[in-house]
Amino acid sequence: MLLYQDPRAPNPRRVRIFLTEKSVPFETIEILIANRAHQTEEFRSKNPIALLPVLELPDGRILRESMAICRYVEELHPAVNLFGNDAWERAQIEQWNRHAELELLYPIGQVFRNTNPFWVGRIEQAPAFGEIMRNVATERMAWFDRELSKREYLAGDRFSVADITLLCAIDFGKPSNIRIDAAALPNLARWYQLVNSRPSAKA
Amino acid sequence: MLLYQDPRAPNPRRVRIFLTEKSVPFETIEILIANRAHQTEEFRSKNPIALLPVLELPDGRILRESMAICRYVEELHPAVNLFGNDAWERAQIEQWNRHAELELLYPIGQVFRNTNPFWVGRIEQAPAFGEIMRNVATERMAWFDRELSKREYLAGDRFSVADITLLCAIDFGKPSNIRIDAAALPNLARWYQLVNSRPSAKA
Repeated sequence: MLLYQDPRAPNPRRVRIFLTEKSVPFETIEILIANRAHQTEEFRSKNPIALLPVLELPDGRILRESMAICRYVEELHPAVNLFGNDAWERAQIEQWNRHAELELLYPIGQVFRNTNPFWVGRIEQAPAFGEIMRNVATERMAWFDRELSKREYLAGDRFSVADITLLCAIDFGKPSNIRIDAAALPNLARWYQLVNSRPSAKA
Repeated sequence: MLLYQDPRAPNPRRVRIFLTEKSVPFETIEILIANRAHQTEEFRSKNPIALLPVLELPDGRILRESMAICRYVEELHPAVNLFGNDAWERAQIEQWNRHAELELLYPIGQVFRNTNPFWVGRIEQAPAFGEIMRNVATERMAWFDRELSKREYLAGDRFSVADITLLCAIDFGKPSNIRIDAAALPNLARWYQLVNSRPSAKA
C-alpha cells in the first residue's frame, strides 16, 4: 500500500498513526503542500480535488479520505480493532470520532488556514472567521476535558480511532498557539500524555 | 426510537431520509433552532454541545451525530443496505459520503451561518468567509457534476447514504441562493431529479 501524504498535515497523520497501531506495513510518497505538489496535474490524476491523504493499492485502485482509508484497512486487518467490536461500541466510537473531527480538528484547521502567514497568497483568508474558530476550539477543548473526567479514552475505556483524531486535532493547534492549559484542563492533559506517549504518535 | 430534530436543518434530515429509506419507524421531537430550543438546559442534558440530531433509544441511551446514528441503525436493520455490501463498496460509499459532507454540505452550511440574517444576534458571523465558502461550493458542484457523468449515483450504480448527504447539502443551498444550473451542470441536475423524486426526499 502506498500513502500519498504530507508529514505536517493532520489528516495524513491520522492514517499513519492508524496503520502503525495496526502494524500494517505501508510506503509513503511525500506530496508537500508547501511546494504546491498537491496541485500538480500528476497528483490531481490521483485526486482531482488535490487533497491528502490518498491511498493507492497494489492493483492501482485509489482510495481518498482519511476515514474511508482507515475503515478499509480495518476490514482487511481486523486484528487490532480501532472502530469498535459491536454495534453500540462502533456507534460510540463513530460519535466521538466525528466530535473530535467536526468540533475540534475542523475549527483548529480553520484557525490555521485563515490566520497563518503560510497560506498568504495560496488561499483567500478570512481572519475574522479564524478568530471565531479559535474561540470555538477553546470551548470545545473545555468540553472534551469534562468528558475525559468520566473515562480513560475519548470513546470509552480503551484506545480507538477517536483518540487518533483528537490527538491530531490538538497537535495541529501548535502553529496557531492553541495548546492544552494543564492547570485548567487536567483531564485533557492527562489523556494527552497517555495517548501521545504511544509509539504510534511519532508515526 | 425518538429523534430530536429540527425539520429545516440538514443533518436531522439526513437521518430522517435514512430511516425512511429503510422503513424503520421512528418518532420525532421538534427542537426548533429558531426558538433557541436546542440551547435549553433540558436539551443540553441530551447533548451538551446543543447540536441536532440526537437519537434516544427505548432504554434511554443517547446517540448523537447524524452518521453515528445512521450506522447504528444500519447494523440493527441491515435489510436495505445503504453503507455498502463489501469492504471495497463500503470504502467507496464512505469516501463519497465524506466528500459530500466535507466538500459541499459543510461549505454550504458556512455560507448560511456567515451570511444569512437568521443568525444575526445568534452567532458571530464572518461574511467574508461565507463568500469564500460560496466559491468553494460552486467549484465543488462542478466537480460533482463531472463525477456524475461517469455513474448513476454518487458512489456507484445504486443509491447509498452518500446520495442522501449530497441531496441534503444541495437543498441546504436554497436559503443562500446556491442552486444547480441545469444547463451548466446537466449531470448533477439529472442526479438531483433522480434522487429528489424518491419518496424519502420528503421525509
